[in-house]
Amino acid sequence: MNIDVLISEVGPRDGLQNISSIMPLANKKKWITAEARAGVKEIEVGSFVSHKLLPQMADTAEVVAHALLIPGLRVAALVPNLFGAEAAVRAGVHKITIPFSASETHSIKNVRRTHDQMLDEVRKIVGALHGLPVRPAIEVSISTAFGCTYEGNISEDKVVQISEALIEAGCDEVGLADSAGSANPVQIKSVVSSVQAAVGKGAFAGLHLHNNRGLGLANVLAGLEVGVTTFDSSLSGLGGCPFLPGAAGNIVTEDLVFMLEAMGLKTGINIEALLNVRKILEEALPGETLYGFTPNAGLPLGFQSANMPEPSSININ
Amino acid sequence: MNIDVLISEVGPRDGLQNISSIMPLANKKKWITAEARAGVKEIEVGSFVSHKLLPQMADTAEVVAHALLIPGLRVAALVPNLFGAEAAVRAGVHKITIPFSASETHSIKNVRRTHDQMLDEVRKIVGALHGLPVRPAIEVSISTAFGCTYEGNISEDKVVQISEALIEAGCDEVGLADSAGSANPVQIKSVVSSVQAAVGKGAFAGLHLHNNRGLGLANVLAGLEVGVTTFDSSLSGLGGCPFLPGAAGNIVTEDLVFMLEAMGLKTGINIEALLNVRKILEEALPGETLYGFTPNAGLPLGFQSANMPEPSSININ
Repeated sequence: MNIDVLISEVGPRDGLQNISSIMPLANKKKWITAEARAGVKEIEVGSFVSHKLLPQMADTAEVVAHALLIPGLRVAALVPNLFGAEAAVRAGVHKITIPFSASETHSIKNVRRTHDQMLDEVRKIVGALHGLPVRPAIEVSISTAFGCTYEGNISEDKVVQISEALIEAGCDEVGLADSAGSANPVQIKSVVSSVQAAVGKGAFAGLHLHNNRGLGLANVLAGLEVGVTTFDSSLSGLGGCPFLPGAAGNIVTEDLVFMLEAMGLKTGINIEALLNVRKILEEALPGETLYGFTPNAGLPLGFQSANMPEPSSININ
Repeated sequence: MNIDVLISEVGPRDGLQNISSIMPLANKKKWITAEARAGVKEIEVGSFVSHKLLPQMADTAEVVAHALLIPGLRVAALVPNLFGAEAAVRAGVHKITIPFSASETHSIKNVRRTHDQMLDEVRKIVGALHGLPVRPAIEVSISTAFGCTYEGNISEDKVVQISEALIEAGCDEVGLADSAGSANPVQIKSVVSSVQAAVGKGAFAGLHLHNNRGLGLANVLAGLEVGVTTFDSSLSGLGGCPFLPGAAGNIVTEDLVFMLEAMGLKTGINIEALLNVRKILEEALPGETLYGFTPNAGLPLGFQSANMPEPSSININ
């Protein structure tokens, strides 16, 4: 079916790497299959990083192998460097996402690289992948694009310059991430429009929004209004800070899909089936806080999404 | 100072009437004073209803008397009938808000009146107040305007017809309430635009939004885009359903003010002072769940609202 908005589920990567529990491989497989059955078309299933740093991600190659069995699912993985990119290629992912922090302070703390060093690493990845007969798409996610917890404000010019440099380096797409959860709708429209103008709409990958201050879905709406059609989100907001109710990380897939479908925008996702996937997280991650409003409130009486598909009968387990 | 958006704090009414704790009068006074000091210009301080039905509201006349001492504060109260309206007039409020449910099923369950009966009651209130030398403003809040938990979908035509009938009956303003928390941004723009066209922008009071499915601030953004300049909200989302984190009632004043100020819209509110008011609720209502994201995350590094006023030195306690 044709969709209006692509939801890219990042919970198995961004959610799981930010909680202390380690989800067993069997549960990861069950989760990914269930979301694909509900109609989710793209899932970032893990990251190819040091097992010492992120033991939650140690089985990413096996998770990818499972996800690739699911018909029609686009399988993505995060890679911070050439070593990870090579592992992702061996695993056979459809897309790699490279994080590039607009804040150089954050870049140094996060991946121990300056902007120049990280751009060199991106060039190495591009060089390695462009030589392959078949290669994954190369997306760079510009993190801290709307503000940084170390540097504060990040100038729009800097984000535009980084975007241009990355596309010139041979990346296929750049996306923008509100890692600090500090963006507001006016800023979203302005920065996204500038980056789209600089790299072309076809090279704009989408938005990765956090909900730290509750503005996540308002920022989605702002993004929609400037033509964004791909949004990352995490089922049940997995990965939010667990210290207080409401302290959140990624925007919540369930609430995002509810909003879009209620607005008449097709996601291709059966929201009732999606809401049921939460149970897999509840069972696999006892003690972890799950977020989201729609799962608690349920769908409004008589709610019909305009084009809700039947859940798929994918029979991979 | 001039403001772009009026925040009407409804926590002392809509928040307190939906929790089981009864806040002592002294704490209500402290809360209202502290919000006014932070720059909040309008507060719905209580409701004039049966003490048997809502013991939380039994001291509303005394709360009003206190609030009227605060310079520049517009003092509002909810009244469901003529009896309540007369009490509100005696107390000296600046504005009464009458709830009128677009869902007749909800109207019958909530105030035991059909639409015709409720319209008669509104006419009685208008008749009584219009005869006074000085009278409070009469706002009607059309509840379940975007959907009802009993009836489901509510037609836009019905909401428009009710709005017109209420203005014809002599009310000053009508506002729209998403009591079921089921509205989406497309619907907000459509229904608000139709009601504004029917009654005139000057007679449109604003939006009262709930956050049941997490779309509250996205719906605010939609409202702003069709010219809405008044929004109700509740400090710390007081009144949300306490059974699960994230099951929410009113949109959260702290998050709303953060969004507006971050967007460069002047609320006249000092957000740092506002965030401190939450402590009064924490102390006065131990065990009640408080909501909101910005109170947990704090303000972004280097955040400056464009026109943040100094907290006022109001010395009423």
